[in-house]
Amino acid sequence: MIKVIIIGAGNVATHLYQTFLKEKELEVIQVYNRNEKHLHFVKDPDLRTSNIKNLKKADLYLLAVRDEVIGEMAEKIKDNKAVFVHCSGSEPMDRLSKFENHGVFYPLQTFSKDKPVNFKEVPLCLEANSAETLKHLREIASMLSDNIFEVNSEQRRALHLCAVFVNNFTNHLYTLAAEYCKRNELPFKILQPLIKETAAKIETLPPYSAQTGPALRNDQNTITAHLKMLDEDQKKIYTILTDSIQKLHGKKL
Amino acid sequence: MIKVIIIGAGNVATHLYQTFLKEKELEVIQVYNRNEKHLHFVKDPDLRTSNIKNLKKADLYLLAVRDEVIGEMAEKIKDNKAVFVHCSGSEPMDRLSKFENHGVFYPLQTFSKDKPVNFKEVPLCLEANSAETLKHLREIASMLSDNIFEVNSEQRRALHLCAVFVNNFTNHLYTLAAEYCKRNELPFKILQPLIKETAAKIETLPPYSAQTGPALRNDQNTITAHLKMLDEDQKKIYTILTDSIQKLHGKKL
Repeated sequence: MIKVIIIGAGNVATHLYQTFLKEKELEVIQVYNRNEKHLHFVKDPDLRTSNIKNLKKADLYLLAVRDEVIGEMAEKIKDNKAVFVHCSGSEPMDRLSKFENHGVFYPLQTFSKDKPVNFKEVPLCLEANSAETLKHLREIASMLSDNIFEVNSEQRRALHLCAVFVNNFTNHLYTLAAEYCKRNELPFKILQPLIKETAAKIETLPPYSAQTGPALRNDQNTITAHLKMLDEDQKKIYTILTDSIQKLHGKKL
Repeated sequence: MIKVIIIGAGNVATHLYQTFLKEKELEVIQVYNRNEKHLHFVKDPDLRTSNIKNLKKADLYLLAVRDEVIGEMAEKIKDNKAVFVHCSGSEPMDRLSKFENHGVFYPLQTFSKDKPVNFKEVPLCLEANSAETLKHLREIASMLSDNIFEVNSEQRRALHLCAVFVNNFTNHLYTLAAEYCKRNELPFKILQPLIKETAAKIETLPPYSAQTGPALRNDQNTITAHLKMLDEDQKKIYTILTDSIQKLHGKKL
Protein backbone atom coordinates (compact mmCIF):
# COMPACT_ATOMS: atom_id res chain seq x y z
CA MET A 1 0.00 0.00 0.00
CA ILE A 2 1.44 3.36 -1.08
CA LYS A 3 0.61 6.20 1.31
CA VAL A 4 -0.12 9.56 -0.28
CA ILE A 5 -0.56 13.07 1.10
CA ILE A 6 -2.10 15.76 -1.07
CA ILE A 7 -1.26 19.42 -0.44
CA GLY A 8 -3.90 21.77 -1.87
CA ALA A 9 -7.62 22.10 -2.39
CA GLY A 10 -7.99 23.38 -5.95
CA ASN A 11 -9.31 21.63 -9.06
CA VAL A 12 -6.18 19.51 -9.57
CA ALA A 13 -6.00 18.48 -5.89
CA THR A 14 -9.70 17.56 -5.93
CA HIS A 15 -9.47 15.45 -9.09
CA LEU A 16 -6.28 13.72 -7.90
CA TYR A 17 -7.91 12.93 -4.56
CA GLN A 18 -10.97 11.44 -6.24
CA THR A 19 -8.82 9.42 -8.64
CA PHE A 20 -6.51 8.12 -5.91
CA LEU A 21 -9.52 7.01 -3.83
CA LYS A 22 -10.46 4.50 -6.53
CA GLU A 23 -7.03 2.83 -6.54
CA LYS A 24 -6.69 -0.14 -4.21
CA GLU A 25 -2.93 0.11 -3.98
CA LEU A 26 -2.94 3.80 -3.10
CA GLU A 27 -4.14 5.27 0.16
CA VAL A 28 -4.64 9.00 0.66
CA ILE A 29 -3.79 9.35 4.36
CA GLN A 30 -4.07 13.14 4.58
CA VAL A 31 -5.07 16.25 2.63
CA TYR A 32 -3.67 19.62 3.68
CA ASN A 33 -4.99 23.08 3.02
CA ARG A 34 -4.35 26.31 4.90
CA ASN A 35 -8.08 26.87 5.04
CA GLU A 36 -9.77 23.64 6.17
CA LYS A 37 -13.15 24.87 4.86
CA HIS A 38 -11.97 24.24 1.31
CA LEU A 39 -11.34 20.57 2.12
CA HIS A 40 -15.05 19.67 2.08
CA PHE A 41 -14.37 17.36 -0.89
CA VAL A 42 -12.51 15.07 1.54
CA LYS A 43 -15.29 12.96 3.03
CA ASP A 44 -13.46 11.71 6.13
CA PRO A 45 -12.75 14.69 8.44
CA ASP A 46 -9.87 12.78 10.06
CA LEU A 47 -7.96 13.03 6.79
CA ARG A 48 -8.19 16.83 6.68
CA THR A 49 -5.59 19.13 8.20
CA SER A 50 -4.89 22.84 8.08
CA ASN A 51 -1.73 22.57 10.20
CA ILE A 52 1.36 21.93 8.08
CA LYS A 53 3.25 20.78 11.18
CA ASN A 54 0.81 17.89 11.58
CA LEU A 55 1.72 16.24 8.28
CA LYS A 56 1.99 12.47 8.65
CA LYS A 57 4.64 10.22 7.15
CA ALA A 58 3.77 9.17 3.62
CA ASP A 59 5.49 7.65 0.60
CA LEU A 60 4.42 10.38 -1.78
CA TYR A 61 3.66 14.06 -1.16
CA LEU A 62 1.81 15.79 -3.99
CA LEU A 63 1.98 19.59 -3.97
CA ALA A 64 -1.06 20.57 -6.04
CA VAL A 65 -0.91 24.27 -5.21
CA ARG A 66 -0.64 27.49 -7.19
CA ASP A 67 2.72 28.01 -8.93
CA GLU A 68 3.59 31.04 -6.81
CA VAL A 69 3.40 29.15 -3.51
CA ILE A 70 5.21 25.92 -4.40
CA GLY A 71 8.55 27.19 -3.05
CA GLU A 72 7.04 28.63 0.09
CA MET A 73 5.10 25.39 0.82
CA ALA A 74 8.26 23.34 0.28
CA GLU A 75 10.02 25.48 2.88
CA LYS A 76 7.43 24.55 5.48
CA ILE A 77 7.59 20.77 4.92
CA LYS A 78 10.32 18.61 6.45
CA ASP A 79 12.18 16.18 4.23
CA ASN A 80 11.74 12.53 5.19
CA LYS A 81 13.20 10.62 2.21
CA ALA A 82 9.73 10.19 0.68
CA VAL A 83 9.05 11.39 -2.88
CA PHE A 84 7.91 15.01 -3.17
CA VAL A 85 6.38 16.24 -6.42
CA HIS A 86 4.59 19.32 -7.68
CA CYS A 87 1.89 19.34 -10.36
CA SER A 88 2.74 22.52 -12.23
CA GLY A 89 3.13 22.87 -15.98
CA SER A 90 5.46 25.83 -15.83
CA GLU A 91 7.55 25.58 -12.64
CA PRO A 92 10.95 23.86 -12.87
CA MET A 93 11.53 20.64 -10.96
CA ASP A 94 14.19 22.23 -8.77
CA ARG A 95 11.60 24.25 -6.88
CA LEU A 96 11.59 21.10 -4.73
CA SER A 97 15.37 20.54 -4.65
CA LYS A 98 15.48 20.70 -0.85
CA PHE A 99 13.95 17.22 -0.83
CA GLU A 100 16.30 14.31 -1.44
CA ASN A 101 13.77 12.62 -3.74
CA HIS A 102 11.77 15.02 -5.81
CA GLY A 103 10.10 15.41 -9.15
CA VAL A 104 7.09 16.56 -11.13
CA PHE A 105 3.72 14.94 -11.70
CA TYR A 106 1.95 17.17 -14.23
CA PRO A 107 -1.48 16.07 -15.47
CA LEU A 108 -1.96 17.75 -18.85
CA GLN A 109 -5.70 18.26 -18.74
CA THR A 110 -8.28 20.91 -17.94
CA PHE A 111 -10.09 20.23 -14.67
CA SER A 112 -13.30 21.83 -13.44
CA LYS A 113 -14.69 21.03 -10.01
CA ASP A 114 -18.03 19.69 -11.21
CA LYS A 115 -16.99 17.86 -14.35
CA PRO A 116 -15.68 14.31 -13.98
CA VAL A 117 -12.65 13.41 -16.10
CA ASN A 118 -11.64 9.98 -17.36
CA PHE A 119 -8.23 9.90 -15.68
CA LYS A 120 -7.08 6.84 -17.66
CA GLU A 121 -6.78 9.15 -20.68
CA VAL A 122 -5.06 12.04 -18.91
CA PRO A 123 -1.43 12.43 -20.06
CA LEU A 124 0.79 12.37 -16.97
CA CYS A 125 4.08 14.16 -17.53
CA LEU A 126 6.74 12.89 -15.16
CA GLU A 127 10.17 14.17 -14.22
CA ALA A 128 12.40 13.13 -11.31
CA ASN A 129 15.83 13.89 -9.86
CA SER A 130 16.94 10.25 -9.99
CA ALA A 131 16.23 7.07 -11.92
CA GLU A 132 14.88 5.47 -8.77
CA THR A 133 12.46 8.30 -8.02
CA LEU A 134 11.32 8.25 -11.63
CA LYS A 135 10.65 4.53 -11.36
CA HIS A 136 8.53 5.09 -8.24
CA LEU A 137 6.57 7.84 -9.97
CA ARG A 138 6.08 5.71 -13.06
CA GLU A 139 4.64 2.87 -10.97
CA ILE A 140 2.13 5.16 -9.30
CA ALA A 141 1.26 7.04 -12.49
CA SER A 142 0.63 3.82 -14.41
CA MET A 143 -2.03 2.81 -11.87
CA LEU A 144 -3.93 5.98 -12.73
CA SER A 145 -3.43 6.59 -16.44
CA ASP A 146 -2.55 4.80 -19.66
CA ASN A 147 -0.83 7.93 -20.94
CA ILE A 148 2.55 8.33 -19.22
CA PHE A 149 5.27 10.59 -20.64
CA GLU A 150 8.72 11.45 -19.37
CA VAL A 151 9.13 15.16 -19.96
CA ASN A 152 11.92 17.50 -18.80
CA SER A 153 11.27 20.94 -17.30
CA GLU A 154 11.86 22.79 -20.55
CA GLN A 155 9.58 20.49 -22.54
CA ARG A 156 6.95 20.82 -19.84
CA ARG A 157 7.06 24.59 -20.15
CA ALA A 158 6.56 24.19 -23.89
CA LEU A 159 3.59 21.89 -23.29
CA HIS A 160 2.05 24.33 -20.87
CA LEU A 161 2.32 27.06 -23.49
CA CYS A 162 0.72 24.74 -26.07
CA ALA A 163 -2.08 24.08 -23.59
CA VAL A 164 -2.79 27.82 -23.50
CA PHE A 165 -3.23 27.74 -27.29
CA VAL A 166 -5.35 24.59 -27.56
CA ASN A 167 -7.37 25.09 -24.40
CA ASN A 168 -7.51 28.72 -23.18
CA PHE A 169 -7.44 30.43 -26.57
CA THR A 170 -9.63 27.82 -28.24
CA ASN A 171 -12.19 28.11 -25.46
CA HIS A 172 -12.14 31.87 -25.91
CA LEU A 173 -12.94 31.45 -29.61
CA TYR A 174 -15.89 29.28 -28.52
CA THR A 175 -16.94 32.10 -26.16
CA LEU A 176 -16.80 34.73 -28.90
CA ALA A 177 -18.88 32.45 -31.15
CA ALA A 178 -21.39 31.84 -28.34
CA GLU A 179 -21.82 35.61 -27.87
CA TYR A 180 -22.22 36.07 -31.59
CA CYS A 181 -24.90 33.35 -31.72
CA LYS A 182 -26.77 34.97 -28.84
CA ARG A 183 -26.82 38.33 -30.62
CA ASN A 184 -28.28 36.61 -33.70
CA GLU A 185 -30.87 34.62 -31.75
CA LEU A 186 -29.22 31.33 -32.54
CA PRO A 187 -28.75 28.55 -29.97
CA PHE A 188 -25.05 27.90 -29.25
CA LYS A 189 -25.70 24.14 -29.35
CA ILE A 190 -26.02 24.40 -33.13
CA LEU A 191 -22.19 24.80 -33.17
CA GLN A 192 -21.42 21.92 -30.80
CA PRO A 193 -21.21 19.11 -33.38
CA LEU A 194 -18.76 21.22 -35.41
CA ILE A 195 -16.65 21.94 -32.32
CA LYS A 196 -16.60 18.25 -31.42
CA GLU A 197 -15.71 17.15 -34.95
CA THR A 198 -12.96 19.79 -35.23
CA ALA A 199 -11.35 18.32 -32.11
CA ALA A 200 -11.93 14.71 -33.23
CA LYS A 201 -10.52 15.27 -36.71
CA ILE A 202 -6.96 15.88 -35.54
CA GLU A 203 -6.83 12.38 -34.06
CA THR A 204 -6.74 11.00 -37.58
CA LEU A 205 -5.39 13.96 -39.60
CA PRO A 206 -2.51 16.30 -38.64
CA PRO A 207 -4.10 19.71 -37.96
CA TYR A 208 -2.07 21.23 -40.80
CA SER A 209 -3.87 18.91 -43.25
CA ALA A 210 -7.25 19.41 -41.57
CA GLN A 211 -7.22 23.16 -42.24
CA THR A 212 -10.13 24.48 -44.34
CA GLY A 213 -11.91 27.79 -44.75
CA PRO A 214 -11.75 31.18 -46.48
CA ALA A 215 -8.22 32.01 -45.23
CA LEU A 216 -6.79 28.79 -46.67
CA ARG A 217 -8.69 29.22 -49.94
CA ASN A 218 -7.66 32.90 -49.98
CA ASP A 219 -11.34 33.64 -50.58
CA GLN A 220 -11.20 37.44 -50.35
CA ASN A 221 -14.95 37.93 -50.93
CA THR A 222 -15.85 35.92 -47.84
CA ILE A 223 -13.04 37.43 -45.76
CA THR A 224 -14.19 40.97 -46.64
CA ALA A 225 -17.83 40.11 -45.91
CA HIS A 226 -16.86 38.58 -42.54
CA LEU A 227 -14.79 41.59 -41.50
CA LYS A 228 -17.80 43.85 -42.08
CA MET A 229 -19.83 41.75 -39.64
CA LEU A 230 -17.36 42.12 -36.72
CA ASP A 231 -16.60 44.79 -34.14
CA GLU A 232 -13.10 46.28 -33.88
CA ASP A 233 -11.71 43.73 -31.39
CA GLN A 234 -13.15 40.74 -33.20
CA LYS A 235 -11.81 42.16 -36.46
CA LYS A 236 -8.28 42.22 -35.03
CA ILE A 237 -8.53 38.56 -34.01
CA TYR A 238 -9.99 37.59 -37.40
CA THR A 239 -7.27 39.45 -39.30
CA ILE A 240 -4.34 38.18 -37.27
CA LEU A 241 -5.46 34.54 -37.43
CA THR A 242 -6.31 34.78 -41.13
CA ASP A 243 -2.85 36.24 -41.82
CA SER A 244 -1.21 33.53 -39.73
CA ILE A 245 -3.06 30.74 -41.61
CA GLN A 246 -2.10 32.25 -44.96
CA LYS A 247 1.52 32.68 -43.95
CA LEU A 248 1.86 29.14 -42.62
CA HIS A 249 0.17 27.59 -45.63
CA GLY A 250 2.11 29.72 -48.11
CA LYS A 251 -0.87 31.70 -49.38
CA LYS A 252 0.96 34.99 -48.87
CA LEU A 253 4.47 35.96 -49.88
CA MET B 1 -39.44 7.42 -53.23
CA ILE B 2 -37.92 10.90 -53.40
CA LYS B 3 -35.63 11.36 -56.39
CA VAL B 4 -32.53 13.47 -55.82
CA ILE B 5 -29.89 14.95 -58.12
CA ILE B 6 -26.64 16.21 -56.66
CA ILE B 7 -24.68 18.93 -58.48
CA GLY B 8 -21.02 18.99 -57.46
CA ALA B 9 -18.15 16.68 -56.57
CA GLY B 10 -16.52 18.31 -53.54
CA ASN B 11 -16.47 17.23 -49.91
CA VAL B 12 -20.06 18.26 -49.20
CA ALA B 13 -21.39 16.61 -52.38
CA THR B 14 -19.49 13.41 -51.56
CA HIS B 15 -20.76 13.19 -47.99
CA LEU B 16 -24.33 14.01 -49.03
CA TYR B 17 -24.19 11.34 -51.72
CA GLN B 18 -22.93 8.72 -49.27
CA THR B 19 -25.55 9.68 -46.70
CA PHE B 20 -28.42 9.69 -49.20
CA LEU B 21 -27.40 6.22 -50.41
CA LYS B 22 -28.21 4.78 -46.98
CA GLU B 23 -31.75 6.17 -46.95
CA LYS B 24 -34.41 3.85 -48.30
CA GLU B 25 -36.86 6.62 -49.09
CA LEU B 26 -34.33 8.66 -51.04
CA GLU B 27 -32.87 7.76 -54.40
CA VAL B 28 -29.93 9.59 -55.93
CA ILE B 29 -30.74 9.30 -59.62
CA GLN B 30 -27.86 11.44 -60.93
CA VAL B 31 -24.71 13.29 -59.91
CA TYR B 32 -23.41 16.09 -62.09
CA ASN B 33 -19.94 17.55 -62.32
CA ARG B 34 -18.34 19.49 -65.16
CA ASN B 35 -15.37 17.15 -64.96
CA GLU B 36 -16.64 13.57 -64.82
CA LYS B 37 -13.29 12.34 -63.50
CA HIS B 38 -14.10 13.85 -60.12
CA LEU B 39 -17.24 11.72 -59.86
CA HIS B 40 -15.32 8.51 -59.06
CA PHE B 41 -17.07 8.43 -55.66
CA VAL B 42 -20.29 7.58 -57.51
CA LYS B 43 -20.05 3.79 -57.93
CA ASP B 44 -22.62 3.40 -60.71
CA PRO B 45 -21.26 5.07 -63.89
CA ASP B 46 -24.81 5.43 -65.23
CA LEU B 47 -25.55 7.94 -62.48
CA ARG B 48 -22.69 10.21 -63.49
CA THR B 49 -23.02 13.05 -65.94
CA SER B 50 -20.84 15.95 -67.05
CA ASN B 51 -23.47 17.39 -69.37
CA ILE B 52 -25.78 19.82 -67.60
CA LYS B 53 -28.28 19.52 -70.44
CA ASN B 54 -28.71 15.83 -69.62
CA LEU B 55 -30.12 16.40 -66.15
CA LYS B 56 -33.05 14.11 -65.41
CA LYS B 57 -36.29 15.01 -63.66
CA ALA B 58 -35.99 14.80 -59.89
CA ASP B 59 -37.89 15.99 -56.83
CA LEU B 60 -34.86 17.67 -55.24
CA TYR B 61 -31.80 19.27 -56.84
CA LEU B 62 -28.93 19.91 -54.43
CA LEU B 63 -26.35 22.42 -55.62
CA ALA B 64 -23.30 21.50 -53.55
CA VAL B 65 -20.86 23.69 -55.46
CA ARG B 66 -18.49 26.54 -54.57
CA ASP B 67 -20.22 29.78 -53.54
CA GLU B 68 -18.94 31.68 -56.59
CA VAL B 69 -20.55 29.35 -59.10
CA ILE B 70 -24.01 28.85 -57.53
CA GLY B 71 -25.57 31.63 -59.64
CA GLU B 72 -23.90 30.52 -62.82
CA MET B 73 -24.96 26.86 -62.30
CA ALA B 74 -28.53 27.97 -61.59
CA GLU B 75 -28.55 29.81 -64.93
CA LYS B 76 -27.77 26.58 -66.74
CA ILE B 77 -30.49 24.48 -65.11
CA LYS B 78 -34.11 24.59 -66.29
CA ASP B 79 -36.85 25.06 -63.71
CA ASN B 80 -39.26 22.15 -63.45
CA LYS B 81 -41.25 22.87 -60.27
CA ALA B 82 -39.00 20.59 -58.24
CA VAL B 83 -37.21 21.93 -55.13
CA PHE B 84 -33.80 23.50 -55.80
CA VAL B 85 -31.46 24.17 -52.88
CA HIS B 86 -27.86 25.23 -52.40
CA CYS B 87 -25.65 24.12 -49.49
CA SER B 88 -23.73 27.31 -48.79
CA GLY B 89 -23.26 28.97 -45.41
CA SER B 90 -22.80 32.46 -46.76
CA GLU B 91 -24.81 32.81 -49.97
CA PRO B 92 -28.35 34.20 -49.70
CA MET B 93 -31.28 32.00 -50.62
CA ASP B 94 -32.27 34.26 -53.52
CA ARG B 95 -29.28 33.09 -55.56
CA LEU B 96 -31.80 30.45 -56.63
CA SER B 97 -34.81 32.75 -57.05
CA LYS B 98 -35.24 31.79 -60.70
CA PHE B 99 -36.69 28.49 -59.49
CA GLU B 100 -40.31 28.51 -58.36
CA ASN B 101 -39.49 26.34 -55.33
CA HIS B 102 -36.12 27.05 -53.82
CA GLY B 103 -34.26 27.12 -50.57
CA VAL B 104 -31.11 26.31 -48.63
CA PHE B 105 -29.86 23.06 -47.16
CA TYR B 106 -26.73 23.97 -45.19
CA PRO B 107 -25.00 21.21 -43.24
CA LEU B 108 -23.03 22.96 -40.48
CA GLN B 109 -20.10 20.58 -40.25
CA THR B 110 -16.54 20.18 -41.46
CA PHE B 111 -16.19 17.49 -44.09
CA SER B 112 -13.01 15.83 -45.31
CA LYS B 113 -13.04 13.30 -48.10
CA ASP B 114 -11.55 10.42 -46.12
CA LYS B 115 -13.17 10.94 -42.75
CA PRO B 116 -16.65 9.52 -42.21
CA VAL B 117 -19.11 11.76 -40.34
CA ASN B 118 -22.10 10.69 -38.26
CA PHE B 119 -24.71 12.55 -40.28
CA LYS B 120 -27.43 12.03 -37.64
CA GLU B 121 -25.61 14.63 -35.52
CA VAL B 122 -24.95 17.15 -38.29
CA PRO B 123 -27.04 20.33 -37.82
CA LEU B 124 -28.99 20.93 -41.02
CA CYS B 125 -29.93 24.58 -41.47
CA LEU B 126 -32.96 24.96 -43.68
CA GLU B 127 -34.54 27.92 -45.41
CA ALA B 128 -37.19 27.99 -48.14
CA ASN B 129 -39.19 30.46 -50.20
CA SER B 130 -42.54 28.99 -49.13
CA ALA B 131 -44.06 27.06 -46.25
CA GLU B 132 -44.69 24.13 -48.57
CA THR B 133 -41.10 23.96 -49.81
CA LEU B 134 -39.87 24.21 -46.22
CA LYS B 135 -42.11 21.30 -45.28
CA HIS B 136 -40.65 19.20 -48.10
CA LEU B 137 -37.10 20.07 -47.04
CA ARG B 138 -37.90 19.31 -43.42
CA GLU B 139 -39.21 15.86 -44.34
CA ILE B 140 -36.07 15.01 -46.26
CA ALA B 141 -33.70 16.54 -43.70
CA SER B 142 -35.31 14.64 -40.84
CA MET B 143 -34.54 11.33 -42.56
CA LEU B 144 -30.86 12.25 -42.46
CA SER B 145 -30.29 14.11 -39.21
CA ASP B 146 -31.76 14.57 -35.73
CA ASN B 147 -30.55 18.17 -35.72
CA ILE B 148 -32.81 20.32 -37.91
CA PHE B 149 -32.89 24.12 -37.62
CA GLU B 150 -34.81 26.73 -39.52
CA VAL B 151 -32.38 29.55 -40.15
CA ASN B 152 -32.79 32.66 -42.31
CA SER B 153 -30.08 33.92 -44.69
CA GLU B 154 -28.75 36.51 -42.22
CA GLN B 155 -28.54 34.02 -39.36
CA ARG B 156 -26.86 31.54 -41.66
CA ARG B 157 -24.19 34.11 -42.52
CA ALA B 158 -23.65 34.62 -38.79
CA LEU B 159 -23.33 30.87 -38.27
CA HIS B 160 -20.84 30.60 -41.08
CA LEU B 161 -18.74 33.31 -39.46
CA CYS B 162 -18.95 31.47 -36.12
CA ALA B 163 -17.81 28.31 -37.89
CA VAL B 164 -14.66 30.15 -39.01
CA PHE B 165 -13.92 30.92 -35.35
CA VAL B 166 -14.68 27.50 -33.86
CA ASN B 167 -13.34 25.42 -36.74
CA ASN B 168 -10.81 27.26 -38.96
CA PHE B 169 -9.21 29.42 -36.27
CA THR B 170 -9.34 26.70 -33.62
CA ASN B 171 -7.73 24.22 -36.00
CA HIS B 172 -5.03 26.78 -36.72
CA LEU B 173 -4.29 27.06 -32.99
CA TYR B 174 -3.94 23.25 -32.99
CA THR B 175 -1.53 23.57 -35.93
CA LEU B 176 0.61 26.16 -34.14
CA ALA B 177 0.73 23.91 -31.07
CA ALA B 178 1.65 20.90 -33.21
CA GLU B 179 4.56 22.84 -34.74
CA TYR B 180 5.67 23.96 -31.30
CA CYS B 181 5.58 20.37 -30.02
CA LYS B 182 7.65 19.21 -32.98
CA ARG B 183 10.31 21.83 -32.30
CA ASN B 184 10.49 20.63 -28.69
CA GLU B 185 10.61 16.92 -29.59
CA LEU B 186 7.22 16.26 -28.07
CA PRO B 187 4.58 14.06 -29.73
CA PHE B 188 1.47 16.06 -30.68
CA LYS B 189 -0.74 13.25 -29.37
CA ILE B 190 0.16 14.33 -25.83
CA LEU B 191 -2.19 17.32 -26.41
CA GLN B 192 -5.08 15.33 -27.89
CA PRO B 193 -6.89 14.48 -24.63
CA LEU B 194 -6.81 18.16 -23.67
CA ILE B 195 -8.15 19.20 -27.08
CA LYS B 196 -10.93 16.62 -26.82
CA GLU B 197 -11.88 17.63 -23.27
CA THR B 198 -11.85 21.35 -24.17
CA ALA B 199 -14.42 20.63 -26.89
CA ALA B 200 -16.44 18.27 -24.66
CA LYS B 201 -16.57 20.67 -21.73
CA ILE B 202 -18.74 23.23 -23.49
CA GLU B 203 -21.51 20.65 -23.85
CA THR B 204 -22.10 20.92 -20.10
CA LEU B 205 -20.66 24.36 -19.28
CA PRO B 206 -21.10 27.61 -21.26
CA PRO B 207 -17.66 28.43 -22.73
CA TYR B 208 -17.60 31.70 -20.77
CA SER B 209 -17.69 29.68 -17.52
CA ALA B 210 -15.24 27.07 -18.82
CA GLN B 211 -12.48 29.67 -19.32
CA THR B 212 -9.27 29.06 -17.35
CA GLY B 213 -5.60 30.02 -17.72
CA PRO B 214 -3.09 32.82 -17.13
CA ALA B 215 -5.10 35.48 -19.04
CA LEU B 216 -8.19 34.88 -16.90
CA ARG B 217 -6.15 34.80 -13.67
CA ASN B 218 -4.23 37.87 -14.88
CA ASP B 219 -1.06 35.90 -14.06
CA GLN B 220 1.51 38.33 -15.45
CA ASN B 221 4.52 36.14 -14.56
CA THR B 222 3.30 33.30 -16.75
CA ILE B 223 2.16 35.63 -19.54
CA THR B 224 5.59 37.32 -19.64
CA ALA B 225 7.39 33.96 -19.59
CA HIS B 226 5.19 32.67 -22.43
CA LEU B 227 5.77 35.75 -24.60
CA LYS B 228 9.53 35.19 -24.33
CA MET B 229 9.10 31.69 -25.74
CA LEU B 230 7.29 32.81 -28.92
CA ASP B 231 8.33 34.27 -32.26
CA GLU B 232 6.94 37.61 -33.43
CA ASP B 233 3.86 36.25 -35.19
CA GLN B 234 2.94 33.86 -32.39
CA LYS B 235 3.46 36.71 -29.91
CA LYS B 236 0.87 38.82 -31.74
CA ILE B 237 -1.68 36.02 -31.56
CA TYR B 238 -0.92 35.38 -27.89
CA THR B 239 -1.23 39.08 -27.01
CA ILE B 240 -4.42 39.75 -28.92
CA LEU B 241 -6.22 36.70 -27.53
CA THR B 242 -4.98 37.35 -23.98
CA ASP B 243 -6.24 40.95 -24.23
CA SER B 244 -9.57 39.77 -25.60
CA ILE B 245 -10.04 37.26 -22.75
CA GLN B 246 -9.19 39.90 -20.17
CA LYS B 247 -11.50 42.46 -21.72
CA LEU B 248 -14.44 40.07 -21.96
CA HIS B 249 -13.98 38.77 -18.42
CA GLY B 250 -13.50 42.26 -16.98
CA LYS B 251 -9.85 41.77 -15.97
CA LYS B 252 -8.85 44.99 -17.70
CA LEU B 253 -10.39 48.43 -17.44
